[in-house]
Amino acid sequence: MTKKITLSWRKNLQFLAQDEYGHSLVVDTDQAGGGDDAGFRPLDLLLVALAGCMAMDIVAIVRKKGGKISSYKMCLEGERATEHPKRFIKITYKLMGQGEYKDEDLQRAFELSRDKYCSVFHTLKNPPSFEFSLGRE
Amino acid sequence: MTKKITLSWRKNLQFLAQDEYGHSLVVDTDQAGGGDDAGFRPLDLLLVALAGCMAMDIVAIVRKKGGKISSYKMCLEGERATEHPKRFIKITYKLMGQGEYKDEDLQRAFELSRDKYCSVFHTLKNPPSFEFSLGRE
Repeated sequence: MTKKITLSWRKNLQFLAQDEYGHSLVVDTDQAGGGDDAGFRPLDLLLVALAGCMAMDIVAIVRKKGGKISSYKMCLEGERATEHPKRFIKITYKLMGQGEYKDEDLQRAFELSRDKYCSVFHTLKNPPSFEFSLGRE
Repeated sequence: MTKKITLSWRKNLQFLAQDEYGHSLVVDTDQAGGGDDAGFRPLDLLLVALAGCMAMDIVAIVRKKGGKISSYKMCLEGERATEHPKRFIKITYKLMGQGEYKDEDLQRAFELSRDKYCSVFHTLKNPPSFEFSLGRE
């Protein structure tokens, strides 16, 4: 089971990302950092990946248990180190739902995602190996 | 230094992600997984975050050294475990450039990103702590 994305440089620090299924999105940074602010920054995308993966598990599990979700929101905050590489040192998730479901079902869905299913969270908890190759196109 | 994103449920397993700067993007999954395939999947976004962060460092550093990049591309492949949580066990980066720059400058830019600057890569190499809270909206 492999997944694959491609990132192509457009201008300044702006890139176009494409997945295997025909979706694309712009990655950029702020003007102070040399970009044009035309899209998500990479560190924000890391938070979106974490939020999206867990949110999908939770919504799917609550609905399987017969719950009706009318709204569901997640806010993620990442606190960065002050020194390079300025990695996230702490990530805080806030999960907020509304609808006709049992609070304990949402709690259990969250625990199942955190402890068993969330691929992105567990990639961060237990880092993969990395391999690099460089060349002329 | 904190960063923040919000993810809001739209329908099925489709969500809208928003950053603090006015950008938004759709996160979804395939129909077999209960989604509508309307946007990037979370695991692909993790690869985009990794690619984007390193690509920005590399392009910025090569240009600071006086190089002229005419094209630059990164392909990332993530190999997943077969058992839940199906995390990435190996991530392979291919970096491909073209232009008037010295190969050793690109090599050095890559090493600086990998070893010193890339915030996303170093968040994965050295996991942050996580905190969660659940509630009704």
